[in-house]
Amino acid sequence: MAQPAPQSQAEIRQRNLSRVLHAVAEAGPLSRAGVAGRIGLTRGAVSTMVDELLRAGLLVEQGPGRSGTVGRPGTQLLLSDRGPCGLGAEIGVDHLAVCVMDLRGQVRARLSQQAHNRQSEPGTVLDALSGLLRRAAEQTVAAGLRPAGLTVAVPGLVARGTTKVLRAPNLGWRDTDLGGLLPADLGPVVVENEANLGALGELWSGLWSEQERAPGSFVHVSAEIGIGAAVVVDGELLRGAHGFAGELGHMPVRPDGRPCTCGGRGCLETYAGEEAVLRAAGLRPGPAVRLGALTGRCEAGEPVALRAVRRAGTALGIALSGAVNLLDPEQVVIGGALARFGPWLLPPVRRELARRTTAAAGGRSTPVPVTASPLGPDGPLLGAARHAIRTTLDAPGGVA
Amino acid sequence: MAQPAPQSQAEIRQRNLSRVLHAVAEAGPLSRAGVAGRIGLTRGAVSTMVDELLRAGLLVEQGPGRSGTVGRPGTQLLLSDRGPCGLGAEIGVDHLAVCVMDLRGQVRARLSQQAHNRQSEPGTVLDALSGLLRRAAEQTVAAGLRPAGLTVAVPGLVARGTTKVLRAPNLGWRDTDLGGLLPADLGPVVVENEANLGALGELWSGLWSEQERAPGSFVHVSAEIGIGAAVVVDGELLRGAHGFAGELGHMPVRPDGRPCTCGGRGCLETYAGEEAVLRAAGLRPGPAVRLGALTGRCEAGEPVALRAVRRAGTALGIALSGAVNLLDPEQVVIGGALARFGPWLLPPVRRELARRTTAAAGGRSTPVPVTASPLGPDGPLLGAARHAIRTTLDAPGGVA
Repeated sequence: MAQPAPQSQAEIRQRNLSRVLHAVAEAGPLSRAGVAGRIGLTRGAVSTMVDELLRAGLLVEQGPGRSGTVGRPGTQLLLSDRGPCGLGAEIGVDHLAVCVMDLRGQVRARLSQQAHNRQSEPGTVLDALSGLLRRAAEQTVAAGLRPAGLTVAVPGLVARGTTKVLRAPNLGWRDTDLGGLLPADLGPVVVENEANLGALGELWSGLWSEQERAPGSFVHVSAEIGIGAAVVVDGELLRGAHGFAGELGHMPVRPDGRPCTCGGRGCLETYAGEEAVLRAAGLRPGPAVRLGALTGRCEAGEPVALRAVRRAGTALGIALSGAVNLLDPEQVVIGGALARFGPWLLPPVRRELARRTTAAAGGRSTPVPVTASPLGPDGPLLGAARHAIRTTLDAPGGVA
Repeated sequence: MAQPAPQSQAEIRQRNLSRVLHAVAEAGPLSRAGVAGRIGLTRGAVSTMVDELLRAGLLVEQGPGRSGTVGRPGTQLLLSDRGPCGLGAEIGVDHLAVCVMDLRGQVRARLSQQAHNRQSEPGTVLDALSGLLRRAAEQTVAAGLRPAGLTVAVPGLVARGTTKVLRAPNLGWRDTDLGGLLPADLGPVVVENEANLGALGELWSGLWSEQERAPGSFVHVSAEIGIGAAVVVDGELLRGAHGFAGELGHMPVRPDGRPCTCGGRGCLETYAGEEAVLRAAGLRPGPAVRLGALTGRCEAGEPVALRAVRRAGTALGIALSGAVNLLDPEQVVIGGALARFGPWLLPPVRRELARRTTAAAGGRSTPVPVTASPLGPDGPLLGAARHAIRTTLDAPGGVA
């Protein structure tokens, strides 16, 4: 969506501070003049804002400028690696994880633990997560950073703009407000669906580099126990009328095929979900046997394992053909647990897309590019931390 | 998308004139005070703009006000039915059609003729269409209206913001610019894909009534010879990265099924496209045998015809289940030629959606509503005319 018109001086100030930070994030180190040139404000106005951001610890100076630049080198501005930081957290079905990211996008601390969260009391799970968060916050403060926001990824549906989990079937949660169960002293708390955060993590991978911009419109597949997706259109998540968009796992792949837990038949999840893939590979799914158990077998060239992954790829390619024909994205990104199976999974995905989408889409001659997310299963956790950072860069007024 | 911030006095004036017109369109007859109350501007400012719009012939007065209103009745404002009008045109595979719509949304003239446009020269087709447009324009002027814009619906892909048809496979056109082939004296010319105009026609059905607002997010199926769709999200068309979004007809319904002209297999079009349905009903498709030939047989209860339409409904329901799981729209609207088969087509569509989407979408208890468009096969033509009117209401400065 376009930026709404600024309403007040405070909002204009906030927006301009944010533009300074984003310019330095993308193209830093930058001089004050370099910032002014990029954002189209006067050098005087930029200097005032830069001073404010230096005092608040969001920017730091280094100088003199890089050799080889023309003219007298000035001091250069960088985002601080000792100022505010973002905390990302992930509630998985069998693990909890927390990471601390500085304004430069570097992971500064990372903690995780196994957990049996399936059908657990939310209070118990959140106690454990809060313990991890406290330890991470201590490490953070010791490193000279201060927590400026917390974003929590959950495998379920979150009521938009709230901290309430409407449904998380794999956890057994329903209408559970996490707000009061999380530490209140780590900055503003955001709770968001893990597939959405995986996609936003991908979208914002270009936050710190103008060279590495993610495409603005893509389908991001997020496979853990189930299969979800997030659709990004022009840099915005497509959430759907009720917040339920992205249910790629229940797209019919073989309409008269296997019954699915959803009540339908032949859904993608029944062919490419974790349990289906493990069973197809002759393994018995369980807390100790996750998709990761298959990577070694694929690397070793075990035919049963390879066939199971290729079949999942074919099913995924069929479902994605439908999505691509409908949405015409710039790119498809496979994230989550399936991202590790790229060498075996992507060829059948690409084959189905080539067969089923090129001519259909008005004669496009090459199929949509499909890549495995470099973040892989870390996507939602890193996406959560990036979300917290992005919130600070977008609205530094709360910190500056 | 949110309205961008106004840049100049001229733009602010344009926007405010448009707000006056939209207020009167939605809720007229309205007094000047009524308009001022609805749009939040002073009565003085509104009066100046109303006078301007009266002079330009976009508004007319009627008075005194309706009885039963409190206080002294003032004159009431209405959109003019003798001012500027919009022209919509449709290039079909075997017909041409033109309609004239006044600012109140009433069709004031309508002309159509059979034509053999498949594999025809664009120049020949556009000559015939221009003839129809001239006759319609004459009728328009005789009725005291003046053409203020022309929107042309084509069954193909149009380069966004241009009058160039990139590909229209059923016409055999490729990279054909229609701009120079259309009359230049009917106002600004817009060329747009027919499925998009069908959806916009639906979206803007609420333009003249605040009671009848269409949902802001819906999937609009547009079936003529092929099957297309338009996806509307928050009141905007989702066009896709290359303008190819909405290819519902090539969503895989039975992945190992019938070969499709697109090179894929088991696409929706091979089960619910016109040719497939006619063949399934034992008819031989051809220029004289179109889907309309089946409605009578369905009404008469012919088992073969009913079975053919029901099978198409099942395939459509499977494809739409994928679309609904992915997009979570408020509503699904079936437009175009299939809209006439509602009583026989919709039950299997709804059955598939109920089986395949309710539990999947986070436990939504009722499936997405599916309706047949009241515009039916007229959707693209009426959508084109509404598009021309809407352009005038949005930017009256060119006319006022």
